[in-house]
Amino acid sequence: MAASASTRKPVLSLESINPAVLDVHYAVRGELALKAVAYEEQLQDPAKAKELPFDKVVTANIGNPQQKGLNQRPITFWRQVISLLENPALFQDHLDVISKIYPEDVIARAKTLYGEIGSVGAYTHSKGIPAIRKKVAAFIEKRDGHPANPEHIFLTAGASAGVSQILGLVLKPGEGCMIPIPQYPLYTATLAYIHAKPVPYYLDEATGWSTSTEGLIEGVNKAKADGIKVKALAIINPGNPTGGVLSRESMEKVVQLCYDEGIVLLADEVYQRNIFDPKERPFISFKEVVRSMPKEIAESVELVSFHSISKGVSGECGRRGGYFELTNIAEDVVEQIYKMASVTLCPPVTGQVGVDLLVDPPKPGDASYDQWLAETTLTHDNLRDRSKLMSERFNQLPNMSCQPAEGAMYLFPQIKIPQRAIDEAKKRGKDADVMYTLDLLDATGICSVAGSGFGQEKGTYHLRVTALCPGVEDYVGKIEKFHKEWIAKWA
Amino acid sequence: MAASASTRKPVLSLESINPAVLDVHYAVRGELALKAVAYEEQLQDPAKAKELPFDKVVTANIGNPQQKGLNQRPITFWRQVISLLENPALFQDHLDVISKIYPEDVIARAKTLYGEIGSVGAYTHSKGIPAIRKKVAAFIEKRDGHPANPEHIFLTAGASAGVSQILGLVLKPGEGCMIPIPQYPLYTATLAYIHAKPVPYYLDEATGWSTSTEGLIEGVNKAKADGIKVKALAIINPGNPTGGVLSRESMEKVVQLCYDEGIVLLADEVYQRNIFDPKERPFISFKEVVRSMPKEIAESVELVSFHSISKGVSGECGRRGGYFELTNIAEDVVEQIYKMASVTLCPPVTGQVGVDLLVDPPKPGDASYDQWLAETTLTHDNLRDRSKLMSERFNQLPNMSCQPAEGAMYLFPQIKIPQRAIDEAKKRGKDADVMYTLDLLDATGICSVAGSGFGQEKGTYHLRVTALCPGVEDYVGKIEKFHKEWIAKWA
Repeated sequence: MAASASTRKPVLSLESINPAVLDVHYAVRGELALKAVAYEEQLQDPAKAKELPFDKVVTANIGNPQQKGLNQRPITFWRQVISLLENPALFQDHLDVISKIYPEDVIARAKTLYGEIGSVGAYTHSKGIPAIRKKVAAFIEKRDGHPANPEHIFLTAGASAGVSQILGLVLKPGEGCMIPIPQYPLYTATLAYIHAKPVPYYLDEATGWSTSTEGLIEGVNKAKADGIKVKALAIINPGNPTGGVLSRESMEKVVQLCYDEGIVLLADEVYQRNIFDPKERPFISFKEVVRSMPKEIAESVELVSFHSISKGVSGECGRRGGYFELTNIAEDVVEQIYKMASVTLCPPVTGQVGVDLLVDPPKPGDASYDQWLAETTLTHDNLRDRSKLMSERFNQLPNMSCQPAEGAMYLFPQIKIPQRAIDEAKKRGKDADVMYTLDLLDATGICSVAGSGFGQEKGTYHLRVTALCPGVEDYVGKIEKFHKEWIAKWA
Repeated sequence: MAASASTRKPVLSLESINPAVLDVHYAVRGELALKAVAYEEQLQDPAKAKELPFDKVVTANIGNPQQKGLNQRPITFWRQVISLLENPALFQDHLDVISKIYPEDVIARAKTLYGEIGSVGAYTHSKGIPAIRKKVAAFIEKRDGHPANPEHIFLTAGASAGVSQILGLVLKPGEGCMIPIPQYPLYTATLAYIHAKPVPYYLDEATGWSTSTEGLIEGVNKAKADGIKVKALAIINPGNPTGGVLSRESMEKVVQLCYDEGIVLLADEVYQRNIFDPKERPFISFKEVVRSMPKEIAESVELVSFHSISKGVSGECGRRGGYFELTNIAEDVVEQIYKMASVTLCPPVTGQVGVDLLVDPPKPGDASYDQWLAETTLTHDNLRDRSKLMSERFNQLPNMSCQPAEGAMYLFPQIKIPQRAIDEAKKRGKDADVMYTLDLLDATGICSVAGSGFGQEKGTYHLRVTALCPGVEDYVGKIEKFHKEWIAKWA
């Protein structure tokens, strides 16, 4: 049946596309990020750039350590090894030349990996290169003191890809997944897309964003009352955006709850290397906690643990690499996970190589060790020091309070927004903290994310900024100046 | 409510996971591929290797040009440029040394890209690096003679990632997407996962796997009769697994059908560079056909076109790079696609660089041009010649007939399976062509895919093999010997 030209409507419209897509919200790269991109374009044009009160855009909305204008340089060892894998002719045909530039352990690692992988342009095993999965297992065993099985480790295109894959397999439409509030919005975005229900549990800001068992049980009970089956619990440790690091005691309570209630535990541990006071508050993996509990718990609580090359001291986000480990998952379910991994063919190969370099860095005595240690220590210490300095300075500001971070790479200060600003924001149809972040961007070029993008207790307002920043004055100083003026304006 | 240790059942089982996952089938990497992996492991152990009648596994089940043991080498220009981007110190600090190894256009390209991108370890714009999207637009304009808008081009982690993203956005659960039979199983796998319905249309083997308008209309009408709304039509040109290349006339009929019936056209054009007789049967893009039709069609038929760096003459599958172009899609829908792309952060950066090198190769006069031309010509000619030789030899076999391929990188011969073998397969609970491919693997180490994994006319049996092969005798010779013996055994 042919339609005439004048009557034919587009097939695709907001009304006709998959409605789950409309339910997806993702503030980290939302309206504010779009505006920041527009400003960046404007700054390219000298004539138009003059109209702006800043000369660069600082994208403090995403944890992107290697972005232009920041201080974090890639780890030399990583890039040397990968450059050889990209062009093996460098060590096959020009070894004399390259030996003068590259340390011997770089060349040796590249040769070993080349022997295992061959071309980085070929598809690999869908679970990831077997030799690298074995090295991940060895890394986990050394970290936790409990065995790990390479067949239960899947390499992924970053942690996000793994999280989406697992959520989509674990949850039937309508089932619930507990998520921390505040949370990284990947979780709510993915749950919306797969028609599953987010079941919030609130972290306690006053006690450093701690996870309380009461909060969790309250969440489960509320979900039950609403007729939602709680099937999974996502936990981010160290926390994003909060920076909180869980104690063993808290973790045991979470595992116990999962055991009691029949819940699959999803542990997002991508910031495990970003720990600011390892003596006082070390990173402990959920795998270790599960395996250390009484046998009936240790051998039954189902756990998926996620790690990534994007954070830590490597910060190789653009490469898209990571892995997840399955603990206590039935073998026939592991096979289904494998099948789904096969549909996406394989994770990016140099992302897989990044995982190799993450879990097996240079050792004392290796030619690259000193440089690797110096570079990673500098990155780690910079992040810790900046995070501390930022929370201290934020706490000195009027109408702002900030829990110091114990780990990860963000701060999540609370802003007491004056009532006049709240009323004005309502008029504009925006959350008050979104208005704050838009004004911050307009005044300073700093792109942050409003707390409402992560979820927060009703009536509170927050801001997420990364502790990855260029010069302190250029960043914290600008936020301070803006904040004081903005609060004064609306007081 | 605590469960006792003895009664607690695993949360995850085949009964409790998302049932859509169970509906996903993906033969390309199914039982046969698993068995091939097991044989590969067995071959690593000299004692156990002796038990096998072959000394290597040939994975002819996937189009993976750069896998070990095949002849296709990466394009030197690509790998040189990317090695510099991986380690910019090579041109920043060691330019004197590297200039002796790398041609000047390689260094110039790397510097330009480094200026545009910065670190390949940083996240990029979620749509992909703006400068590369502009170059893709220029490539499309030159190819088609019609303008392209960089804002309607999204870089992706290979074509598969793009196809999944678009299907998940276009289709509501229960809506239909037309797919060719035989088809690449990514489509059925993704449709199953998103609860959408595949609506088959049959390609005609006798006429070189052509797409007939009658077949399409029959498919639409049958879906309507079944109460399924047909919202999208996927078409693979050049065809996978068939190797057929569409004529302009066929394409115009497809576009007309999409116009008449209100269907979104999804054009998988990843094999556009793998064309064996460009004078007789050239590649024409659907974008070009749509834009060349009468205005009301040219400006209304909604089209998404996919391309990839994994196939063609680059074969860089492991890098995960590609793009899609949106034509006639409403701007507010484009924004939704952008939002969903943001949730996955960004495509792998050196995959994006691969797209740059794909759409803007060395030009005559550039230092790398001669080598680039020699390498890509060799790859292209090898594939065409092997494809031709394989179909000729297959056609000389008893109980086998094979349409010669006009493009892509596969052959899809039909096997007349003796009734005794069909009966035996039924006893074993397998499709007869699956039994054939398992026996082929056991006897020769060659891993193919049975036609039933792609769909085929009832009562016919096929085999998909790639035309990427090691030495001809080592591959085609082994298939011939096995085939004759197998047919004789079951005759």
